[in-house]
Amino acid sequence: MKPDLATDRDESTVLVDLGDRSYPIHISTGATGRIAAALEKTLGQTSHALLIHDAAVEPWAEAVAAQIRSDTLRVDIASVPSGEPSKSIAQYQELLDWMLERGADRRSVVIAVGGGVIGDLAGFVAASFARGIRFVQVPTTLLAMVDSSVGGKTGINLSGAKNMVGAFWQPELVWIDTLAMKTLPDRSYLSGLAEVIKYGVIDDAAFFDDLESNAAALVERDPEVLRYAIRQSCLSKARVVGEDERETSGRRAILNYGHTFAHAIEATAGYGTLLHGEAVSIGMQMAASLAIQLDLCDPGVLERQTQLLQACRLPITFPAADAAAMLPVMMRDKKVAHGKLRFILPTKIGHVELVGDVDPAEVETAIRAHR
Amino acid sequence: MKPDLATDRDESTVLVDLGDRSYPIHISTGATGRIAAALEKTLGQTSHALLIHDAAVEPWAEAVAAQIRSDTLRVDIASVPSGEPSKSIAQYQELLDWMLERGADRRSVVIAVGGGVIGDLAGFVAASFARGIRFVQVPTTLLAMVDSSVGGKTGINLSGAKNMVGAFWQPELVWIDTLAMKTLPDRSYLSGLAEVIKYGVIDDAAFFDDLESNAAALVERDPEVLRYAIRQSCLSKARVVGEDERETSGRRAILNYGHTFAHAIEATAGYGTLLHGEAVSIGMQMAASLAIQLDLCDPGVLERQTQLLQACRLPITFPAADAAAMLPVMMRDKKVAHGKLRFILPTKIGHVELVGDVDPAEVETAIRAHR
Repeated sequence: MKPDLATDRDESTVLVDLGDRSYPIHISTGATGRIAAALEKTLGQTSHALLIHDAAVEPWAEAVAAQIRSDTLRVDIASVPSGEPSKSIAQYQELLDWMLERGADRRSVVIAVGGGVIGDLAGFVAASFARGIRFVQVPTTLLAMVDSSVGGKTGINLSGAKNMVGAFWQPELVWIDTLAMKTLPDRSYLSGLAEVIKYGVIDDAAFFDDLESNAAALVERDPEVLRYAIRQSCLSKARVVGEDERETSGRRAILNYGHTFAHAIEATAGYGTLLHGEAVSIGMQMAASLAIQLDLCDPGVLERQTQLLQACRLPITFPAADAAAMLPVMMRDKKVAHGKLRFILPTKIGHVELVGDVDPAEVETAIRAHR
Repeated sequence: MKPDLATDRDESTVLVDLGDRSYPIHISTGATGRIAAALEKTLGQTSHALLIHDAAVEPWAEAVAAQIRSDTLRVDIASVPSGEPSKSIAQYQELLDWMLERGADRRSVVIAVGGGVIGDLAGFVAASFARGIRFVQVPTTLLAMVDSSVGGKTGINLSGAKNMVGAFWQPELVWIDTLAMKTLPDRSYLSGLAEVIKYGVIDDAAFFDDLESNAAALVERDPEVLRYAIRQSCLSKARVVGEDERETSGRRAILNYGHTFAHAIEATAGYGTLLHGEAVSIGMQMAASLAIQLDLCDPGVLERQTQLLQACRLPITFPAADAAAMLPVMMRDKKVAHGKLRFILPTKIGHVELVGDVDPAEVETAIRAHR
């Protein structure tokens, strides 16, 4: 990848174009010293911020708070336990009560500092407190940077149903500083790369080429390569979301490449066995195999995808995959399609299509190919 | 009032114009036998409805369910206890869990049958289940017909803070049948008239004239006069909301005429002592007195308002009004205005203005005028 793009400096900004809900994603390495100015530019004069962070990134959250706190801007801080169980109605209520107690009103701003769990939870809090207040995201994991920072999906879980309650609520600003990942364990970091590679497969062949050429640098977290990968991922997602903000046209479904398999793997393996990105990596492999079985693409697609995932140290098989257990999960997942299995499948690197009414026997074969 | 308008038949429809969130309000006496057809026309083919109703209107809810249930439309029913305490996070969660258990998905429809409490609660459930599903309102109180059916405000309470959590979520259809009020106690019915009269004062002098001429018929619940009053109220509110859907321009604030006083009366009298409409009636009297004190209007405004409220058997004084206790509540209520007291005050019948920075001593005088 030749970083010869005009915007490819230490800092760049991706504009997510959603009419009057448009917002900028600022991508940098080490620019957090300037977050106060960026906030003021985006939000205008603001007197009260509620910073909600993952307990695991407390030092980063404190650093952000120290930057933005001033004589005119009061900053309250809430720490939320790491992990999916925090996306509960109980935790949601606790945060709302805390905000009320801290005197939050319609002009307050919620700032989420953490990964996807915090973004989803704090986002729904912002979407519903006083019927919706402003929201800023400071993602601290690669997955949140390339996935949750675009799309406006917020939400919490009901027992047994992920993201069943929530809202579409767009942030005013997303502030990505790759230094926030300094303490992110390698396994978490690498799992985020699965979603990065996904954008190459579904939407951008040139980006996929660049990732192939720079896989080693990406694994080493080279800042320049990393910023480029984050920016291209956000641009891809922003393009898709811009065409289908509220998931009504079906266009947005292409973002689910590999995810129907991944969700079934996660559900049958027990959540927590695999990281989400690892399950997506295996799920993309199964989806590519299914596409080849259905004569939608040639075997070269799977080969290149396999090599890139392996170069990024991502798992490409799941020995415990149990097709008999996974299929019913997939059927439930797809209830919107009248019980017929539908998949996002590649026709070539850089392009996918929605394929309906797939024979379960073919799905089983694809699963077995990656055990 | 001469019901000589072309639309003034047994049935009429008010269109709330909010771009792609526009919806019809159907107003009738006895048309509920045709609700199934109206639903299909508005929603298209639908396979699953979740009807949430106030326990006090179970027979009406069952009648609605019987009309819409069919071989192709499954109807699940949940009964919610009457009263403000049902607008809790606990009740909200209970309904969400119930919907999940009943197999609700993105294409399901929530139907609220009841007054403001049910509309607010079921509306927020609809706004947030699966990040927002379709919503139909079947108001059964006069207050809900003329107030909650327009505006899209949904929400629940935190302890000590009304409507602190919620969403703006527009219904697909509002179905008003005045027969639904058959069992509504007189006191509840009459309290709804306070909001009807409010629209005359804030927005429509001709409507106010008509109400004066027909107050006796209105108190007697004459169906034709009642439908006219509901329609004009919905039209007034729809005009205001259409200009300021998300309460950002300030225009929508005019709907709060009398309400700053009313909320303070309710809070200091203890919720439940007065019905909301009764508090609004007294609050409008205090606001009109304040306007006269500030030389904004002549005393005739208060005189006409007093006579109309009395003709509708609404209270115009509150002997227990305690200005010393009410003022701090009003200050808190208005925190968005930097702690300065702001009021919606009439300049003449049919027109109000937002008046900022009012002297607390003047407010006390206005309160004392209606003890």
